[in-house]
Amino acid sequence: MGKKINKTDRMAVITKILVENPKKIFTLNYFSEILNSAKSTLSEDIDVIENVFSEFELGEINSISGAAGGIYYNPKLTDSQIDNICDELCDLINDKSRIIPGGYVYMNDIFYNPNILQKIAKSLANPYLDKKIDYVVTIETKGIPLAIMTANILNIPMIVVRKKARLTEGTTIQMNYLTGSSKRINTMALPKRSIPKGAKVLFVDDFMKAGGTAKGVNDLMSEFEAEVVGIAVVMSTKEPEQKIINNYYSLLEFDGIDEKEEKINIYRRKNNN
Amino acid sequence: MGKKINKTDRMAVITKILVENPKKIFTLNYFSEILNSAKSTLSEDIDVIENVFSEFELGEINSISGAAGGIYYNPKLTDSQIDNICDELCDLINDKSRIIPGGYVYMNDIFYNPNILQKIAKSLANPYLDKKIDYVVTIETKGIPLAIMTANILNIPMIVVRKKARLTEGTTIQMNYLTGSSKRINTMALPKRSIPKGAKVLFVDDFMKAGGTAKGVNDLMSEFEAEVVGIAVVMSTKEPEQKIINNYYSLLEFDGIDEKEEKINIYRRKNNN
Repeated sequence: MGKKINKTDRMAVITKILVENPKKIFTLNYFSEILNSAKSTLSEDIDVIENVFSEFELGEINSISGAAGGIYYNPKLTDSQIDNICDELCDLINDKSRIIPGGYVYMNDIFYNPNILQKIAKSLANPYLDKKIDYVVTIETKGIPLAIMTANILNIPMIVVRKKARLTEGTTIQMNYLTGSSKRINTMALPKRSIPKGAKVLFVDDFMKAGGTAKGVNDLMSEFEAEVVGIAVVMSTKEPEQKIINNYYSLLEFDGIDEKEEKINIYRRKNNN
Repeated sequence: MGKKINKTDRMAVITKILVENPKKIFTLNYFSEILNSAKSTLSEDIDVIENVFSEFELGEINSISGAAGGIYYNPKLTDSQIDNICDELCDLINDKSRIIPGGYVYMNDIFYNPNILQKIAKSLANPYLDKKIDYVVTIETKGIPLAIMTANILNIPMIVVRKKARLTEGTTIQMNYLTGSSKRINTMALPKRSIPKGAKVLFVDDFMKAGGTAKGVNDLMSEFEAEVVGIAVVMSTKEPEQKIINNYYSLLEFDGIDEKEEKINIYRRKNNN
């Protein structure tokens, strides 16, 4: 279309395209073509969006200069936004109707709700937004929706480690590992072609107890000559305090259920390392 | 903040909030408070966004009048946008390096890529955007990322049917069903509290052959007194032409692999019923 469009219209179009594609880089040329506007004009538009996003704490608009350069929406949260999300999540979890005999807590409605997952995924991705990471890795099944939402925020693909090899996925590397808490032997499997040598991955899961699964994924990644550069979980248990793995980022801390008082002990985790 | 903000700034803020939350309804009061602007002014802003979205085929801004009313972003695609997504997908799939011995096609990189999933999910959700649907239902494992992305587009929760009951999910209804093609008996399980009576669900999956799984999910939903109001899959096989279930929406049609010619026969499906 040959028609020029005005500034308010350009605001809506540019914001829409950027926000719907977090961390995806768009060139000024791209916007110049669809909006039939000069790059200098668009630069000014983008400055306006950048400033208003910053003022209203709606995330960042970042620029990359040079030949491969462009702009992208970086869905950063402030510390207090993350704290609020964690507090909301604790309120949601700490509901005695969630208690399942055996000391479990029913959470499917939380981990399968895209609205809530969006907030959790943004909070989990936050420390990794500016790091060089190639894949989000998770293990089936419950963590998958969270992992794909986190991968979407980071604009990188996801890899799902299976609990056994599948015929339909081709040649697979299978490995045994020891769960950290119950000391059972489990199996992990991943198709050979899933991940290239040298890849940097972020392991994402809903829950971490002793860290046996995270350690297993770490070992599996070594088999692929890939490297785990971060471990991010929604909840970690207070006990054992000393996990099998060292560094991990966890939003909440779970300290068991008080079955007599019908209370689920879940708190925002402080001092993430 | 007491400061009034100008129209270009308001455009960016309103667009950002609407687009990041597809199908979520926001009141004018909400925007009036955060933007410190009169509702009449905001109505005009929203008209501008609505018009420019329509002009650039970026989806719709819809209004609901009345006490529970407000506005929302409806991520509709045009027919030709869906056709383009399907053609892109066919090009991506029809790559001989994907062929796995046994007649399988490797597709993890597609179904675990959030960028591609966004497009597929929007296409799958498209016929259901204006229907009354309460849940997206899928069965573990491969369809989960697609299902949560589709649920996100529709702004409804997802339910994952498991292949066996889990201790951690409480009382579970378990059911046997017959796969449609190989006539094996498989199991489906779903926690009792997952889904309320009378719920309307959309079944989403990556692949459909004879439709045995879809039929199984249909029967399982009957056990819960819930109703399957739609079946949406990315790919359905050409054979058997007569599926066990009647109405389904499928983006692509798969007609097997020509192993000698190393060709994967995949096409955009016409005449969805």
